[in-house]
Amino acid sequence: MTTAATDRFDSATDTRLETDSLGEYPLPADALYGIHAARANDNFPLTGHPLSRYPDLIRALAQVKLAAAEANQGLGLMSEHKLTAIQSAVQALMAGDHHDAFIVDAIQGGAGTSTNMNANEVIANLGLRRLGHAPGAYPHLHPINDVNQSQSTNDTYPTAVKLAVLTQSEPLLDAMHKLHSTLIQKSDTFDHILKIGRTQLQEAVPMTLGQEFRAFATAIKEEMESVLGSQHGLLKVHLGGTAVGTGINCPAEFGALAVRALNDRTGLDFQLVDDRIFATSDTSALVTVSNALKRLAIVLSKISNDLRLLSSGPRAGFAEIRLPARQAGSSIMPGKVNPVIPEAVSQVAYHVVGNDTAVTMAAESAQLQLNAMLPLVTYKVMDSLAVLTSALNMLTELCIDGIEANETRCRDHLEASAGLVTALCPVIGYDRAARIVKRQQRTREPLLDVVRAESGLSAEALGDLLDPALLVQAQPIRPPAPG
Amino acid sequence: MTTAATDRFDSATDTRLETDSLGEYPLPADALYGIHAARANDNFPLTGHPLSRYPDLIRALAQVKLAAAEANQGLGLMSEHKLTAIQSAVQALMAGDHHDAFIVDAIQGGAGTSTNMNANEVIANLGLRRLGHAPGAYPHLHPINDVNQSQSTNDTYPTAVKLAVLTQSEPLLDAMHKLHSTLIQKSDTFDHILKIGRTQLQEAVPMTLGQEFRAFATAIKEEMESVLGSQHGLLKVHLGGTAVGTGINCPAEFGALAVRALNDRTGLDFQLVDDRIFATSDTSALVTVSNALKRLAIVLSKISNDLRLLSSGPRAGFAEIRLPARQAGSSIMPGKVNPVIPEAVSQVAYHVVGNDTAVTMAAESAQLQLNAMLPLVTYKVMDSLAVLTSALNMLTELCIDGIEANETRCRDHLEASAGLVTALCPVIGYDRAARIVKRQQRTREPLLDVVRAESGLSAEALGDLLDPALLVQAQPIRPPAPG
Amino acid sequence: MTTAATDRFDSATDTRLETDSLGEYPLPADALYGIHAARANDNFPLTGHPLSRYPDLIRALAQVKLAAAEANQGLGLMSEHKLTAIQSAVQALMAGDHHDAFIVDAIQGGAGTSTNMNANEVIANLGLRRLGHAPGAYPHLHPINDVNQSQSTNDTYPTAVKLAVLTQSEPLLDAMHKLHSTLIQKSDTFDHILKIGRTQLQEAVPMTLGQEFRAFATAIKEEMESVLGSQHGLLKVHLGGTAVGTGINCPAEFGALAVRALNDRTGLDFQLVDDRIFATSDTSALVTVSNALKRLAIVLSKISNDLRLLSSGPRAGFAEIRLPARQAGSSIMPGKVNPVIPEAVSQVAYHVVGNDTAVTMAAESAQLQLNAMLPLVTYKVMDSLAVLTSALNMLTELCIDGIEANETRCRDHLEASAGLVTALCPVIGYDRAARIVKRQQRTREPLLDVVRAESGLSAEALGDLLDPALLVQAQPIRPPAPG
Amino acid sequence: MTTAATDRFDSATDTRLETDSLGEYPLPADALYGIHAARANDNFPLTGHPLSRYPDLIRALAQVKLAAAEANQGLGLMSEHKLTAIQSAVQALMAGDHHDAFIVDAIQGGAGTSTNMNANEVIANLGLRRLGHAPGAYPHLHPINDVNQSQSTNDTYPTAVKLAVLTQSEPLLDAMHKLHSTLIQKSDTFDHILKIGRTQLQEAVPMTLGQEFRAFATAIKEEMESVLGSQHGLLKVHLGGTAVGTGINCPAEFGALAVRALNDRTGLDFQLVDDRIFATSDTSALVTVSNALKRLAIVLSKISNDLRLLSSGPRAGFAEIRLPARQAGSSIMPGKVNPVIPEAVSQVAYHVVGNDTAVTMAAESAQLQLNAMLPLVTYKVMDSLAVLTSALNMLTELCIDGIEANETRCRDHLEASAGLVTALCPVIGYDRAARIVKRQQRTREPLLDVVRAESGLSAEALGDLLDPALLVQAQPIRPPAPG
Repeated sequence: MTTAATDRFDSATDTRLETDSLGEYPLPADALYGIHAARANDNFPLTGHPLSRYPDLIRALAQVKLAAAEANQGLGLMSEHKLTAIQSAVQALMAGDHHDAFIVDAIQGGAGTSTNMNANEVIANLGLRRLGHAPGAYPHLHPINDVNQSQSTNDTYPTAVKLAVLTQSEPLLDAMHKLHSTLIQKSDTFDHILKIGRTQLQEAVPMTLGQEFRAFATAIKEEMESVLGSQHGLLKVHLGGTAVGTGINCPAEFGALAVRALNDRTGLDFQLVDDRIFATSDTSALVTVSNALKRLAIVLSKISNDLRLLSSGPRAGFAEIRLPARQAGSSIMPGKVNPVIPEAVSQVAYHVVGNDTAVTMAAESAQLQLNAMLPLVTYKVMDSLAVLTSALNMLTELCIDGIEANETRCRDHLEASAGLVTALCPVIGYDRAARIVKRQQRTREPLLDVVRAESGLSAEALGDLLDPALLVQAQPIRPPAPG
Repeated sequence: MTTAATDRFDSATDTRLETDSLGEYPLPADALYGIHAARANDNFPLTGHPLSRYPDLIRALAQVKLAAAEANQGLGLMSEHKLTAIQSAVQALMAGDHHDAFIVDAIQGGAGTSTNMNANEVIANLGLRRLGHAPGAYPHLHPINDVNQSQSTNDTYPTAVKLAVLTQSEPLLDAMHKLHSTLIQKSDTFDHILKIGRTQLQEAVPMTLGQEFRAFATAIKEEMESVLGSQHGLLKVHLGGTAVGTGINCPAEFGALAVRALNDRTGLDFQLVDDRIFATSDTSALVTVSNALKRLAIVLSKISNDLRLLSSGPRAGFAEIRLPARQAGSSIMPGKVNPVIPEAVSQVAYHVVGNDTAVTMAAESAQLQLNAMLPLVTYKVMDSLAVLTSALNMLTELCIDGIEANETRCRDHLEASAGLVTALCPVIGYDRAARIVKRQQRTREPLLDVVRAESGLSAEALGDLLDPALLVQAQPIRPPAPG
Repeated sequence: MTTAATDRFDSATDTRLETDSLGEYPLPADALYGIHAARANDNFPLTGHPLSRYPDLIRALAQVKLAAAEANQGLGLMSEHKLTAIQSAVQALMAGDHHDAFIVDAIQGGAGTSTNMNANEVIANLGLRRLGHAPGAYPHLHPINDVNQSQSTNDTYPTAVKLAVLTQSEPLLDAMHKLHSTLIQKSDTFDHILKIGRTQLQEAVPMTLGQEFRAFATAIKEEMESVLGSQHGLLKVHLGGTAVGTGINCPAEFGALAVRALNDRTGLDFQLVDDRIFATSDTSALVTVSNALKRLAIVLSKISNDLRLLSSGPRAGFAEIRLPARQAGSSIMPGKVNPVIPEAVSQVAYHVVGNDTAVTMAAESAQLQLNAMLPLVTYKVMDSLAVLTSALNMLTELCIDGIEANETRCRDHLEASAGLVTALCPVIGYDRAARIVKRQQRTREPLLDVVRAESGLSAEALGDLLDPALLVQAQPIRPPAPG
Repeated sequence: MTTAATDRFDSATDTRLETDSLGEYPLPADALYGIHAARANDNFPLTGHPLSRYPDLIRALAQVKLAAAEANQGLGLMSEHKLTAIQSAVQALMAGDHHDAFIVDAIQGGAGTSTNMNANEVIANLGLRRLGHAPGAYPHLHPINDVNQSQSTNDTYPTAVKLAVLTQSEPLLDAMHKLHSTLIQKSDTFDHILKIGRTQLQEAVPMTLGQEFRAFATAIKEEMESVLGSQHGLLKVHLGGTAVGTGINCPAEFGALAVRALNDRTGLDFQLVDDRIFATSDTSALVTVSNALKRLAIVLSKISNDLRLLSSGPRAGFAEIRLPARQAGSSIMPGKVNPVIPEAVSQVAYHVVGNDTAVTMAAESAQLQLNAMLPLVTYKVMDSLAVLTSALNMLTELCIDGIEANETRCRDHLEASAGLVTALCPVIGYDRAARIVKRQQRTREPLLDVVRAESGLSAEALGDLLDPALLVQAQPIRPPAPG
């Protein structure tokens, strides 16, 4: 992978020519990318998702390149002059400028070489601009010899991917945090509302609507821990391993220096793995993140399904809560409002599960000293992070925040169900309780009426037994006779 | 889902106000979409893939809307005047104009209502322009009352999706056809090259490189039949079923008339199903297409994996073929060329398998009279069609077409392997053959030398027995004694 | 893979010794399996599912072996004497005898070689018994030279697998047929019961419970067609292709003769493929069956989910139908009955989807001239067939057959919902209809009371408009003025 | 779910009658299971895998039941007499006795109720035997009132499942440990063998065969950490939550007491969750274990694929290692040996990935206060644990342990490849290195000959540069001039 030391301009056509082992290639004179990115762009017209859609990945590549340059400079392998140029280029990319020069498709052959080269070229050309040279004047700052110095795609790219995934996880965790807070707030609001709990879609025993929403909140909290826990592997990198992890042609000191520089810049705690040969072909850290995102997707879909069930109706369903109307639902039925936000969340969840399937197959395809499918793994994990973040914010702001309880319905359901009677079992016995249930099912009288008539308990005793505080949580022991 | 009969312009701000059951919404005065698409655009900021990325879906929606309008006009439900306006709008969309007015995200809640309404609104506003009215002047041509007349999202949208998938399958089949032809051409070129076949990565018996590539061609031909066979269900539609398939508020004659109009326009053979209630919640036709695309993906990945194996090397691998170099492979190794095109194909394949997982889960989520997740199913099937088409063309043009055989290597491998000896078994017996193999494995002499020395056969007899024509195909019976 | 021509008995220990290229192996003297099956049994202690669990596969192997023997005999390659012995052995296996001699695990390396050899050995030993010899007296009837004559695992085993899958599909289709009939019967019974249809779990427009169940029936009918349609590829076989499809060492006439013999025995219409090299590594026919079974699983789960929704309650849910109680549901709540049968069906469905994932990955793993993972594909397809058949029968007999309608609840829900008002729109207009809905939602009066009060229609006119026959199907056109 | 207090024997037929809310059911008089298990056995004839196949689950159920009994006794709710009977029953089950009384199918509706009841019944009947009563004499020791006291299926069963998964993980981790040790041993043996590393199946740079195997060992070590890390959630239980997590009818003190008793018995560190309502419907802990097992499966398949690649040949492939022959490979080719063990491992891996798909869908199906699909999740996780353990032991003992290196081949490949030249780049420059590669590719001379002729380096200098120690690991910096 050589890039011609001399580049030629054709002033008539405003193009410059770059050369590699395959021959010459004409580029727009001012293109910040170079011949390698251009060829890759020709080769992989696949998804319509260029790298420029992934600013966190671009920034991560820039940060890793700068850390490498600092290490090289520290080892006496790079001049202060060139380092300054690379710093300037990285600064621009961190500011979000020039991302459109990252033209390669997200799905690409070559284990990330094209992504790495696209970054090398853009940074070299931005650096050259800073040094007063035209794009392509690589003798002054070379994409491979300088920007990629002491590196291989196979150590640099996975490091950048891990940093990008860590960075992109922050808005995800923020969105989870917001959803959690909103759910807690809702559960506080709903804490006084008694309702009937359901198992297997059949009425079970009493609980509060607040408890139901607090369980959602707990689920999100658990997922936050799960996502955080899935990230440990992302901090293990193998800079300095070069092509297959042996570190050939790379100074032994480089890896540790580059990692230190990267940690200084990012405030993170990257660490070098012991076995860089293993690490070069391994994608397990990303598999684990994808698994955690799949787990989160499942939980979000469960919550969304519950919201759709609980708001089913408006009259001939459960109808214990009302979701905020976000758009008109039907061209035939006046006033029909559909649970469109939870429906969209479940679709995102299935999308994420599908992404995980792709990650699984790509991970299994590693061969010998490399996994050529790493770009797909990267693409899928970044996509899952992005859509989950959007879906979480959508769910919080456009749905959960505006949910209202239908207290009447909750009370009616509780009273209609036999679940209340369960609470009487310890006092009136299972058999008498069963008789109450059967009479009520036969006559369809209000359950409490039957209870009053059949239980033999005073209104006061009943009031005590059916005290919400007793119904919805475990009671301290009231010693019955051992059986 | 009402849309205000009167719309108001605010000349100062260049906006117009539209109203629905949720209230007013300000739109750019010249927006071709309306309030329903705008709200959906606010509600679902999920994938960054607006409907405008799917021109085949937009054209299909336009064609279905026009067929419906023609049926309504035939039933006396729509004036000639309005039909002309709708025709004009559809013509523009068919020409590829104004697709950017389809703003709703590909993943959306609501079972496709937002897509349908986006289409209704754009067609109404384009029609209004033709009639000399401003966008939003719906009393003259109404998105719901007119463009959606006799329809529901639940019958129109699935019909349009099926048409879109059929349309989008054509470039896929073209790409498959081209790949097939190229493979046939390669197999003809390689027909004279004897090599050793392999099972379980171990040498088996002789074949030709032409046979190996013809097997790839046959695989693609089989997949073409599979894809075509998967499309039958796409021609079954349930226009006229409206909300749940009962056809409420829709003239009984409408469905048949609309289907006839659609067939006239498209040249296809859509047919009304008998059980429209079943059809309204069913996505099986799309599941079957997704399954066929998954099957195709598997086959493409198998071929790509084989290409990578056969070209492994360049010296320390199989190296029986050479893939055309498409880009430089490494910054460390001079001249390293990697099989990037097949690698990209396998990644696309895993992407498509992932899409199928999402389709499976979305299809399973149908509830009662509808599947709210149909937009995800649609999105995934259209995406799989698109990336597979791109991958097929990439594979054909950038890889298969330029493959060269390494005849020397093929011959060396054949001669080194014991597979040749198998052909002698019927004449010299299994045991003598086994002795030849063992001596060769011990001494590493050229196999043919050992054969000549040990087989007891004349050069002429050997020449006959090892005649390529005999080695690589079944031979007519040469009666041995029954065992 | 040689098997010693002479076998030795050790009368003291009741074992016999068999020999292969790896050495000697002691077997129980009367074992019907031989050394190859014994080694495979040692090698693959994986699932605890020996081949003996799959009688259809054993019978299919037996039938293919007999067809091959008949072809060999017809070609003068096998004596009448040996053919008779093989016929006798196959007859015993067809009768279900000696299946416990198929000891190899369902998951096994080797592309099916161990299964094929297990069959060769059992048939040889059964044949030897018939000929008056002891097990292992292979000079008289040899597992490889005779029973496997003109065959390779790579052509015989896939043929047997296809036959087994076809055979095993019959009880599946029977079970689907029974479910369909039962659903039709239920839909007839429920045809008079008006209810409210639901989209997105929200009330939509009226329908009958009969229509709802007929849609289930139609779904099963469609799946029967889908399953049948998925079987075409199973009839394409490549007997005579031997190791890699070239047919080396196999008489050119063998394939056609063996297929004819197989068709005579089975009454099926197997056909030889043109490209046997392609066919040898291809598993697409099984992938397509697995896809169809996945599609069926999705549909069964959708129906089961609907049954759970419709029977949710008993009081605080939809409760429009009652599933037959099959077991007590709770140790805490007297009389709680859960929808355990549909729950089990959905679990089977997920199990089948999981099987399809495994099939997908195994199919993608084909390499060059063979797919070594064919045993897994076989195992998963057979397992899916078996559990789906059981689940279908369970669903039909233990659930669908005993479902009862809750007519009161259906009527109450219909009357409570605004869906009824939709039917009035064409007559009283959308706006007046909307006012009725709003008043009812505010006051919670019975909807029909509000309709009577607000619609301005006579009781007679209302009776006509709300005539069930009009509500639940499309009406012939009643010309309104074009808009 | 009542069980008749009186049971009747029919001495004539040797049956006893039990009764529940559905009526009477005749059981074999000496059956240890009762009416609930019997009905479930009738209801779910699905997989042919009764619970008796899962001894770790049976033991876990027994231990949880005993812990509950101890807690109940401590709270004064159970007599010492009954506790002793339960202890005796549990002791028998722990010893592996009577597991055949666990008759219910692994896939079952009802969220585990049938499994729980099967356990309750067997323990009650074993306890009754100890107390001198006949099976079914429940007034003396009742399956529900006593054995299930203070419990619900919904808290007890998930606790037992978690304990079972933890227990079953031990042999898995042992098997991983053995594989790791064997790989380390192999890598030590192979450490001196130089070879060419490969990326994307193309030759890259030198490494040792020891490094390659050490990377496998590291992978397994990482997976051990991953599996261990996935288990944290298994230690969180919600005993005392009863039906929906509110703890109704359960003494508030019960949960903590039962957990303490369980920890005393198992030596584990179970802890009560804060939000038992959340926990009752949550299966995330099992999802995370399944994800970890899927990750392990991927890694095992990658290693197995590498073993197949590296042993491909024997002559016309990579052939750098030889796998031990485990069975004869072909009936046509003398001496063909196939990599059957790694092939079987990959199939197990796909099986496990398929299990994870089923787990994903089942986990997503939780509804409101319960996940009815927990039995499927349990079944799949336990199955994955079992087959992975078997596959690991198979891989270690039947394959890895016997692998031999083909040193000659490794050296030939290294010398033939251009990878060696890479090491010269820092000294002779990239351009001169490239010339060497090109001449060698043209002339096919031994690479080292060309190097000697073209590099301009003395034999001594070359010896230094190509010193294995330098080739296969990073070198300390040798200061070049900054670029």
